[in-house]
Amino acid sequence: MRLSEIASIIGAEFQGDDKEIISMNTLKDANEYEISFVSNKNKKYFKDIQNSKAGAIIVDTNTKEMVPSGSVALVVEDTYWQMAVLSKYFAPSLEDTDAPDAVIGQDTHIDAKATIAKGAVVGSNCYIMAGSYIGSGCEIGDNTILYPNVTVYRDCKIGKDCIVHAGTVIGSDGFGFASNRLGEHKKIYHNGIVVIEDDVEIGSNVSIDRAVFGMTLVKKGARLDNLIQVAHNCEIGEGSVFAAQSGMAGSSIVGRNNVFGAQSGIAGHLHTGDFNTFAARSGVTKTITQSGKIFAGFPLMEHKMWLKLQAKLSKILQSK
Amino acid sequence: MRLSEIASIIGAEFQGDDKEIISMNTLKDANEYEISFVSNKNKKYFKDIQNSKAGAIIVDTNTKEMVPSGSVALVVEDTYWQMAVLSKYFAPSLEDTDAPDAVIGQDTHIDAKATIAKGAVVGSNCYIMAGSYIGSGCEIGDNTILYPNVTVYRDCKIGKDCIVHAGTVIGSDGFGFASNRLGEHKKIYHNGIVVIEDDVEIGSNVSIDRAVFGMTLVKKGARLDNLIQVAHNCEIGEGSVFAAQSGMAGSSIVGRNNVFGAQSGIAGHLHTGDFNTFAARSGVTKTITQSGKIFAGFPLMEHKMWLKLQAKLSKILQSK
Amino acid sequence: MRLSEIASIIGAEFQGDDKEIISMNTLKDANEYEISFVSNKNKKYFKDIQNSKAGAIIVDTNTKEMVPSGSVALVVEDTYWQMAVLSKYFAPSLEDTDAPDAVIGQDTHIDAKATIAKGAVVGSNCYIMAGSYIGSGCEIGDNTILYPNVTVYRDCKIGKDCIVHAGTVIGSDGFGFASNRLGEHKKIYHNGIVVIEDDVEIGSNVSIDRAVFGMTLVKKGARLDNLIQVAHNCEIGEGSVFAAQSGMAGSSIVGRNNVFGAQSGIAGHLHTGDFNTFAARSGVTKTITQSGKIFAGFPLMEHKMWLKLQAKLSKILQSK
Repeated sequence: MRLSEIASIIGAEFQGDDKEIISMNTLKDANEYEISFVSNKNKKYFKDIQNSKAGAIIVDTNTKEMVPSGSVALVVEDTYWQMAVLSKYFAPSLEDTDAPDAVIGQDTHIDAKATIAKGAVVGSNCYIMAGSYIGSGCEIGDNTILYPNVTVYRDCKIGKDCIVHAGTVIGSDGFGFASNRLGEHKKIYHNGIVVIEDDVEIGSNVSIDRAVFGMTLVKKGARLDNLIQVAHNCEIGEGSVFAAQSGMAGSSIVGRNNVFGAQSGIAGHLHTGDFNTFAARSGVTKTITQSGKIFAGFPLMEHKMWLKLQAKLSKILQSK
Repeated sequence: MRLSEIASIIGAEFQGDDKEIISMNTLKDANEYEISFVSNKNKKYFKDIQNSKAGAIIVDTNTKEMVPSGSVALVVEDTYWQMAVLSKYFAPSLEDTDAPDAVIGQDTHIDAKATIAKGAVVGSNCYIMAGSYIGSGCEIGDNTILYPNVTVYRDCKIGKDCIVHAGTVIGSDGFGFASNRLGEHKKIYHNGIVVIEDDVEIGSNVSIDRAVFGMTLVKKGARLDNLIQVAHNCEIGEGSVFAAQSGMAGSSIVGRNNVFGAQSGIAGHLHTGDFNTFAARSGVTKTITQSGKIFAGFPLMEHKMWLKLQAKLSKILQSK
Repeated sequence: MRLSEIASIIGAEFQGDDKEIISMNTLKDANEYEISFVSNKNKKYFKDIQNSKAGAIIVDTNTKEMVPSGSVALVVEDTYWQMAVLSKYFAPSLEDTDAPDAVIGQDTHIDAKATIAKGAVVGSNCYIMAGSYIGSGCEIGDNTILYPNVTVYRDCKIGKDCIVHAGTVIGSDGFGFASNRLGEHKKIYHNGIVVIEDDVEIGSNVSIDRAVFGMTLVKKGARLDNLIQVAHNCEIGEGSVFAAQSGMAGSSIVGRNNVFGAQSGIAGHLHTGDFNTFAARSGVTKTITQSGKIFAGFPLMEHKMWLKLQAKLSKILQSK
């Protein structure tokens, strides 16, 4: 899309040399053919402006001066809202009907009631059961099983030797939108993907959202139980384990071999170390830099402190 | 159904002029062609008896005298159980095979593996993906997208410009039944519907139950994340937002532009004001008449009080 | 499979008379044609070794002496890991393509977009809607309804007069695996089944996992709301009721007519008495031997104690 056209869509003035912009990205990851934005709500990203290689940046009057010389500043009032408006224009079609026919590997069984959209690639020795849907541009590795009624949205990737149980959804849009003072919401189209690495098993009725930009990532050997929420742009470390009904809010990164108990959760934009255990119902509310620890409670504390707290509460309860 | 027949089904005596009853409804909303009931468990509805316009009312010996003169009293021992028994007789068939073929709007794409039942109406420029099911009598507005494997039960309505993600279920029966002293349960057939207004986005693997009578309602501009429970007869106000794994119990009414955090919940038969925020894991246990406030905790309190409570608990924990 | 072959798969020495082993089972339930194992992690099962009738038992050097004379001891280093390795060899194929065509009862409606795998038996007067999948060897009783996009994995059984709402998954593999010191996980194939007895209603997007060995059991008259997790080898007693988003961890047994509130949970390997009520958000952390009681909180306590605790906390909050 031409930069002049983008400016017109988001209501920004534009003068100078026009150029082609092929996608949207974060300030950090954008290249000269991409457009980025500065959220007027999240000042912690201001520092990324001056180092950005983005071809253009959506800014407001407060941030326009920070834009480096190689990048075009498009000035609007509400940058986040206009980013949402623009995201729709970069969203691919729901299905790529012009793509070549799907490529299916040797000895792979595709049920007659499953759908493999055009442009998908399924490895060898896979078993794709009735009612499952694999979108355009998806890649599924060898020996992977999709039980019935699994949905994989377009362009997502699943590795080798994976098992995805029935009813699970991989690649739905993340829960993102801009809101204005009238309480109206403008959808942010999620043009990133989900990547599931090799040897991952995912239970039934799980929801894993695609990234805004980039990818939501489930690393090698992870194990997810049923009814789990993995929000946009999360990362689950190698061998990590999530019990049923646990959930991750957006952009959190879990280290390797963490164990999340049933009905536990982690808030957004946090990190955890490696080999930690979070008891059932834990709510991780801060980044955990430690490794090899056991936590519990909401707000989160070390498990031994949680036990102590329960003992104290029990005493309070018994007191007059 | 003839009133005499109804009396026979529920084991009530019936004398006098017979008449046709076409459906069941609440005491408040029933008209002269409808039958209602007085739950012997919920005395707060007793006051609605004398003003009811219902053609007939299922009552017990305690409440039969309150029935107004224009209405026929059908006296049984367990009114709630008999209401449940009767509800089955007013339930429509699962699919209306006698209805005319579905009407599909211009430029609407229906995947060959989707099902549009007879009697459904789908607007123009919609995109209905593989494995989705739209029941008899459903109405889907223009520009609405159903991702794969969405189920919309019969007679439910979805507005224009809506997006429903994969695996979501709209219109399943609410969780309602009468129970007796032996611990047996009698299903209450849910003959109401779900109405989703315009510009609503619903995530993946969400469950929205239909109403007993009337409708479960999701108003314009609302946003629901993944794995959310919306029980029978709930109402979600304009622009309200529910994060993943949150849930509403039956008949609760959320005002406009409320925000419910992840894994939060609201108990049944409650109301909330407008522009409130409920933090992650909040449990709303009382009606909230205020607006524009932030709440947290279970039981619920103002967020600043919750923070104070955590500080106090932390102190208790550190004490000897 | 020959015992000599099994020994070779799990890396155990084997001498003596070879014999045929037809399946895996627990120490308690295994017969002479079955192989069992002693988990090196769970000493409480050690006492079952000497009474076991298993044809062979996977043990380590610590437990090999406890094996009774009628049984062959296969000695390995990590018994749990090797049991997991072996479980794959006893897993049936995903679909039994050699089975006879499915048998469908009189007046049963099977939607053209539903799948009834070979070897399944569906009773009379059933209604199986679009997108539903019934696996090989399944048995569905008379008058049972499967709404759209329900998945029933192979060999599971559903009784008469049951209703299963859309998107629900019955019989997915339980969340079980052996882990080693490197943080790698080895899947335990779940070769047990799910049995749903008569007159059970299950809401939408529910997940009920199959047993490792034996069965996960939902007894007569039980009622499950939406988005519920029932883990492997659980048992839900007659007439018990689970509200939305509640969950059971593995191998727990709930008595008859228990009521679990919304978003409640019960940890693994516990029991509850009969006619108990667990308030919303309860977390059952110990076996409940009592019956007819009301509980709340996490950790769990009697409901009246929970109210008292909240009152005390409220007082603490108001104090200076």
